Amino acid sequence: MSNSFGRLFRITTFGESHGEGIGVVIDGCPAGLELDEAFIQSELDRRKPGQSRITTQRKESDRFRLLSGHVNGVTTGAPLGFFVANENVRSRDYDHLERAFRPSHADYTYFAKYGLRDHRGGGRSSARETVARVIGGAVAKLLLKKAGDIRVEAWVQSIHTIEMPGEPGALVYEGEEMQAVRCPHPETARAMYACIDAARKAGNSVGGVVACRVLGVPAGWGEPLYDKVPARLASAMLSINAVKGFEIGSGFAGTRLYGSEHNDPFFAEEGDIRTRSNHAGGVLGGITSGAELRFRVAFKPTSTIMRDQESVDADGKAVVVQGKGRHDPCVVPRAVPIVEGMAAITLADMWLMHRARTGF
Amino acid sequence: MSNSFGRLFRITTFGESHGEGIGVVIDGCPAGLELDEAFIQSELDRRKPGQSRITTQRKESDRFRLLSGHVNGVTTGAPLGFFVANENVRSRDYDHLERAFRPSHADYTYFAKYGLRDHRGGGRSSARETVARVIGGAVAKLLLKKAGDIRVEAWVQSIHTIEMPGEPGALVYEGEEMQAVRCPHPETARAMYACIDAARKAGNSVGGVVACRVLGVPAGWGEPLYDKVPARLASAMLSINAVKGFEIGSGFAGTRLYGSEHNDPFFAEEGDIRTRSNHAGGVLGGITSGAELRFRVAFKPTSTIMRDQESVDADGKAVVVQGKGRHDPCVVPRAVPIVEGMAAITLADMWLMHRARTGF
Amino acid sequence: MSNSFGRLFRITTFGESHGEGIGVVIDGCPAGLELDEAFIQSELDRRKPGQSRITTQRKESDRFRLLSGHVNGVTTGAPLGFFVANENVRSRDYDHLERAFRPSHADYTYFAKYGLRDHRGGGRSSARETVARVIGGAVAKLLLKKAGDIRVEAWVQSIHTIEMPGEPGALVYEGEEMQAVRCPHPETARAMYACIDAARKAGNSVGGVVACRVLGVPAGWGEPLYDKVPARLASAMLSINAVKGFEIGSGFAGTRLYGSEHNDPFFAEEGDIRTRSNHAGGVLGGITSGAELRFRVAFKPTSTIMRDQESVDADGKAVVVQGKGRHDPCVVPRAVPIVEGMAAITLADMWLMHRARTGF
Amino acid sequence: MSNSFGRLFRITTFGESHGEGIGVVIDGCPAGLELDEAFIQSELDRRKPGQSRITTQRKESDRFRLLSGHVNGVTTGAPLGFFVANENVRSRDYDHLERAFRPSHADYTYFAKYGLRDHRGGGRSSARETVARVIGGAVAKLLLKKAGDIRVEAWVQSIHTIEMPGEPGALVYEGEEMQAVRCPHPETARAMYACIDAARKAGNSVGGVVACRVLGVPAGWGEPLYDKVPARLASAMLSINAVKGFEIGSGFAGTRLYGSEHNDPFFAEEGDIRTRSNHAGGVLGGITSGAELRFRVAFKPTSTIMRDQESVDADGKAVVVQGKGRHDPCVVPRAVPIVEGMAAITLADMWLMHRARTGF
Repeated sequence: MSNSFGRLFRITTFGESHGEGIGVVIDGCPAGLELDEAFIQSELDRRKPGQSRITTQRKESDRFRLLSGHVNGVTTGAPLGFFVANENVRSRDYDHLERAFRPSHADYTYFAKYGLRDHRGGGRSSARETVARVIGGAVAKLLLKKAGDIRVEAWVQSIHTIEMPGEPGALVYEGEEMQAVRCPHPETARAMYACIDAARKAGNSVGGVVACRVLGVPAGWGEPLYDKVPARLASAMLSINAVKGFEIGSGFAGTRLYGSEHNDPFFAEEGDIRTRSNHAGGVLGGITSGAELRFRVAFKPTSTIMRDQESVDADGKAVVVQGKGRHDPCVVPRAVPIVEGMAAITLADMWLMHRARTGF
Repeated sequence: MSNSFGRLFRITTFGESHGEGIGVVIDGCPAGLELDEAFIQSELDRRKPGQSRITTQRKESDRFRLLSGHVNGVTTGAPLGFFVANENVRSRDYDHLERAFRPSHADYTYFAKYGLRDHRGGGRSSARETVARVIGGAVAKLLLKKAGDIRVEAWVQSIHTIEMPGEPGALVYEGEEMQAVRCPHPETARAMYACIDAARKAGNSVGGVVACRVLGVPAGWGEPLYDKVPARLASAMLSINAVKGFEIGSGFAGTRLYGSEHNDPFFAEEGDIRTRSNHAGGVLGGITSGAELRFRVAFKPTSTIMRDQESVDADGKAVVVQGKGRHDPCVVPRAVPIVEGMAAITLADMWLMHRARTGF
Repeated sequence: MSNSFGRLFRITTFGESHGEGIGVVIDGCPAGLELDEAFIQSELDRRKPGQSRITTQRKESDRFRLLSGHVNGVTTGAPLGFFVANENVRSRDYDHLERAFRPSHADYTYFAKYGLRDHRGGGRSSARETVARVIGGAVAKLLLKKAGDIRVEAWVQSIHTIEMPGEPGALVYEGEEMQAVRCPHPETARAMYACIDAARKAGNSVGGVVACRVLGVPAGWGEPLYDKVPARLASAMLSINAVKGFEIGSGFAGTRLYGSEHNDPFFAEEGDIRTRSNHAGGVLGGITSGAELRFRVAFKPTSTIMRDQESVDADGKAVVVQGKGRHDPCVVPRAVPIVEGMAAITLADMWLMHRARTGF
Repeated sequence: MSNSFGRLFRITTFGESHGEGIGVVIDGCPAGLELDEAFIQSELDRRKPGQSRITTQRKESDRFRLLSGHVNGVTTGAPLGFFVANENVRSRDYDHLERAFRPSHADYTYFAKYGLRDHRGGGRSSARETVARVIGGAVAKLLLKKAGDIRVEAWVQSIHTIEMPGEPGALVYEGEEMQAVRCPHPETARAMYACIDAARKAGNSVGGVVACRVLGVPAGWGEPLYDKVPARLASAMLSINAVKGFEIGSGFAGTRLYGSEHNDPFFAEEGDIRTRSNHAGGVLGGITSGAELRFRVAFKPTSTIMRDQESVDADGKAVVVQGKGRHDPCVVPRAVPIVEGMAAITLADMWLMHRARTGF
C-alpha cells in the first residue's frame, strides 16, 4: 500500500536517490491506449534537474526504459513497467551525514521508524522518487485525453511573498525566467526568479504555492463519502515531498465569506447545467459538477540550505550540519509537473471507478 | 471502498438523513479493549444538534445501540456494529426540493452521478452521516489512550473573519458562548458567538477553521510514501462535509518563510530528540517526529441559507430555491468532534500499520 | 478487510451467534436496481434452520430489516444496510464450554489469537454469520440478473460416500427428501436423506460436496493475474465455515487426463466461439470464456457431535467435552444458498471490475 | 490490484514472456532483513527451465538484478525492486498463432477481454511470470525464517495416475529422476519420470498434484472471516497458471468421513496444546492451530501439445493449430517452488497482519 497510489489506476513505485534508479509499475491502464513515448519523455524533461541556474546542478538525462505492457506502441491491459537509471550520483557528498540528522529532512524519522536508514541523498525519502509520479501522471494524462479531452494544468501561483495577480488564461511561458519559474504572468515571473536567485546566493531557500486546474471533467465523477474527489486529491498532494497544505475552490479564504456570497447559483445554458461562480472548485458533495476543478498546493521552503545548522546525531550528540552538496533553492517550479501528474493519476482512477459503479 | 475509511482500523458507514438511521461497522479493533460506552455517548453528545440557539433545532437524542463485537464490555476482535436511529425526521420540509437543486449542495452532482437521488434532507450526502464518524472516532480514542496515552484535541480557531490569537493551553470552555462555539479564548468566543447569531438572524451562514493537535504520538508512525501521515489526515479531513482546505504545521503561511526560518533545529533533552520549533507540525517525510501533530481544517459557510436563491431543476428549468427548514448557520463548532474523530481513526490505523510493518 | 469481501461490490459483515443479531453492509451496488425484498427473504428462508428433522432445531424467523440505501424500492448508490435479529438464543447451552475447547471448532484458535473469546454458540466463528452472506448474495443475484440474465445455481453433489450420478438438467426438487437435501436426483436424494438421518440418530455427523454452475456469464470477465475468477471464487468458498476444498472444471480428477483429452477444442457456432468440452470449467487464464462456470466445494462433517470427546481447557487441563445442544448433523444442504451467494457476490464484483478496466 | 498479491507484504509483478523481462516489486518487507541473494538465486534456479529432458528446452539464465530497497545487503523498509531479463526469446515460433486461438490457453479470453493480445509466447498469461512469484516467495521465506524458523516445503504428490504412497519425512532427492520430478519417494519418482517422458515422446502432456506443508507456524495467525488462512492460500494457489483445485487438510476425501472420525482431539503435551490427528490441516476457523499446515494443489495437463488441434481464429474461422515450439510436457515439477513461493508470501502477509491486529 504505502508505495502504491490509486485503486483501479494504480502506480507502485520503487527506487532511491542513490541506488540503481527509480521505477514505476502502472496497473489498471485499459488496453488500446496509444503510448506516446515522446510525450512521456517530455513530461519527464519538465521535471528534470539542471534546467536553469535556479535548480539543482545534479545532471540526469532521465531517459526512461519501458519494460512491459505494450505491443506495437499500444497498451495491452497488462501492467506497464518503467525504469529510469540514476546517473549523476555523488554519494560521497553525504558521507558527513551518515550519522547526523539534517533539520527538517526525514533522516531522523526514518531512523526512528526503521532503526537504520539509507543516508545517501535521502534514500527513499528523496524527491527523486517523483520521477515515477511524473511517468505515471503522463500515462494518466494520455488516458484522460482519450477519455474525453480532459486536461490538467498547473502553474506557480506564488513564491515566498510574491503572488501572481488574478487567474491565468492560456498558460504561455516566454523567455528564460517564465520558463524557469513556470509562472504565466511575466512581471511576477521575473520577480519570482529574482527572489529564488537571491535566496540561492544567500545559501537560503524559499517555498511557494502551485495552483492547478482540470478542464473537461464531466459531472458525476468521484465516490461518496471517503473517496470524494477532494479527499483523493488532497491525499495525492500531501504525499508529495515538501507539501504542507491543500485547498480546493475557495479554500481557507472561503471561510471568510458569507453563505450568500459563497454559494454558486445554478443556471442552464445550451442544455448544460452550470454555476455562475465556482467557489466550490468544481466539486459538490465530493463529486464533480462539470465546472473547472481548482486547487492549490503549498510547498515549504527547501530544507537543504547552504548554512551551518544545529542538530544531533544518532547518539543524541549535538552536531553542526554543514550546508553542502547540490540542491534546489526552491522546489516549486519543478513541482509543477509532479502536481499535474498526481492530479492526473487521481482523476484517471476516479474515471475508472466511475465507470465501474454507476448505472447499468 | 467509498463508504469505508482506514486500512487496518477501518470504519464502514451506512444510512441517510431521513432513513432509518446511521450505522457504522468498525473492523480491526484489537481484542481486549474496554469499551467505555459512556465516553462514546459523550462524544456523540458533543456533536448532537440543538445544543444552543446557534445550531439546528432538529432534535435527536442520538443514543447508540451496540450490536456486536464485545463480551462483558471488552472487545473480542470481532467487528463492532453501532446503530443510531433517526428520530426527528421532517421529510416534508424537503418536498419542495424533490426536483430542484439547492446551490452548493450535492443535489445536482448526485443526480448527475446516479440518475436519481434521495432528496430528503440530502440523503447520504447529509452531515448526519458524521454520527458514524464520531462513534468510530470515540473507539479510536479509547484505543489510542490504551496504546500510549495519545490525545486528540480540536477547537475552533476562526469563524468568518474572527480569529483566535495565539495558541491555546489547556482547552477550557466556560459559559454558554465558549461552550457553544468551542473556542478556548473567552473574548474571541464571545465575538464568534455574536457573529454566528447575527448571520442566523440575517438568514445567512458563516464558515471557519478548526485547529487540531495530537499529543503523545511517538516518533516513527506513518508509512512512506503514499500513506504519509499528512496524506492520510488530509484525506480524512477532505472527506468531511463542507471542508475546503487542510494544512499541517506551517501550512500556507509557511510558504512565505525562508528555509533558514522554517527549518526546525534538532536538540537532545533528557535522552529525547526534540526540535526547537515545530513548523513541520510533527511530521518529517510523512513520519511522526514525536513533536505535537498540528493541523487546521477549513470549513465553508453552510450552503443552506434562509434566502431565495437562483437555481435549476432536473429538467434544466430555472427555479427559485426557497430557504426553509432547520439548519446550522455555522457547522464549525459541531465539526470539532468530527475532526477529532477522523484524526483519531487515522492515527489508530497508522498505529496498527506501524506495528505490522516495523522491526522484528 | 477481514470482515469484508469484494473490491467494488463489497460486503462487510458483523454480529455473533448469541449477540444482538447479524448485519451486513453492501457497498458498491449501482443505483437504479429494484430491490426485490421478497426474493431476498426467500433466499434467507432457503438457509433458515429448522426446516426438516435433519437440520438444527434452533428456531429463527430470520426476517431482515433494510436500514439504508434505497428510495421507493430502488437502490440509490448508497450502501445498503441489513440487520437480522437473533431470536432463539440459548446461551446456557454453552455454559459448560466456557473454558473447554471443542475439537475441530475455532474455540482454541480464537483464544490463542485474541486471548479471550465469545464462547456462546461459537461467537463470531459461528455459521450464523452466513445470514449476511446470503443477503449479500441475494442482492448480487438481482444485480447479475439485471446485468445480463446471469444465474447462479448450486446443488448437493455428494453426502458422505453417496454421490449423484451425472450432471443435472433443470434443478427440480420434489418431495420432502429432495427439498431437505437439495439434490436434484430423486434416488440419490433419498439415500442422502437416510444417511444424514442415520448419522443424526447415532449422534454423529457427515460432510459432502456442493456443486455450482453459473449460466450466462459472457467471455472476458476476470482480472489477470491475482484476481483470476478461480482465485476469487476459491477465496470466497474457503471463507465459508467447514469448507476444506475447491475445484473448478476438471479439478483434481483432471490431473489424471492427458492434455489431448483435457484440452477443450474451439469451434464457431452462429457467430459465437464455443468449446466442444468444458474441462476448463468456464475460465481460461483466469478469464471467463463464455462457457458455463463449473466448480465444486468440499464441506467437512459437522464438528459438533452428540458424543463425549477428549479435549483440553484454557489451562491445558484434560477435559471431556460433552455432546449437547442443537446442531446440524450435516451442513451441506443449508450451505447451498451460501455457496450461491458467495459466488454471486464474487461475480458481481468481477462484473464491476470488468466495466472499469476494459476498453474505451 | 490484479497484478498485486498480498495486503501488507505485497508483490506487484510486471512483464511478459517475450518482452524485456519479468519484474517484481515487494512492498512491506520490514527493515533489517538480511537479503541472502544466493538463496534467492537458488530458488530461481529451482524453477528454471531446461534442467532435464522432461522440461522445456528454452534456455534462460534467470539471473536477477536487485534494483532497490537495501543498504549493505539489509532491507531498509523501502520497496524491493527485482528484474529478470528475458534472453532466449523465439517469438517467430508464435507467428503462426497471431490470429489463431490455442485450445485451453488464454488466447481467446484475453482477446475477448482486451480486444487485442500479445500472442508471442502467451504474453502476460505465460507461466514465465512465475519468475516474479519465486523471487517474492524467496524473500518471504527469508522473512518467515527470521520470524520464527518457519519453513515451507512442497513436493510432487502425483503425476497423472501415479501417486506417492504415504507422507514424506525429510525431503531428500537422490539421482536425476527424483531431482527432475521432485517426488521424495524413489520408486514413485522413477515411474513419474517415465510417465512424463512417455507423454513427451507422444507429443502429449500430463498433470498432477503438488502437496505442501508449512512447519513452525504458531497458533493464532489468520484473520476471520474473509481472510482466513485457507481462503488466502486458495486464492494464492488458484492464481497460478494451470491450477484447477485446492484442498486443505482432509479436503475432498474428508467429506467421506464421519464427524467422529474427522474431529481432531486436543491434548496437552509439555505445555503445548496439540491435536492427535490433523484432518484440519493446521487451521481451525481459518486460524492456525500450531499444527503443520497441509494443503494440495491440482495442476491440469499442459495445454500445449505437439499435435494438431481443432480451433478457430479471431474471425471465428475454423483452423488447425499445429503443435510446435518448446514446452513442458508436465509443469508440475517446476511448479514446486512456485507453490512454495506463493504460500510463503501468503504467510508472510498473515504474519504482518497478525502483528498489527492482535493484543496490546
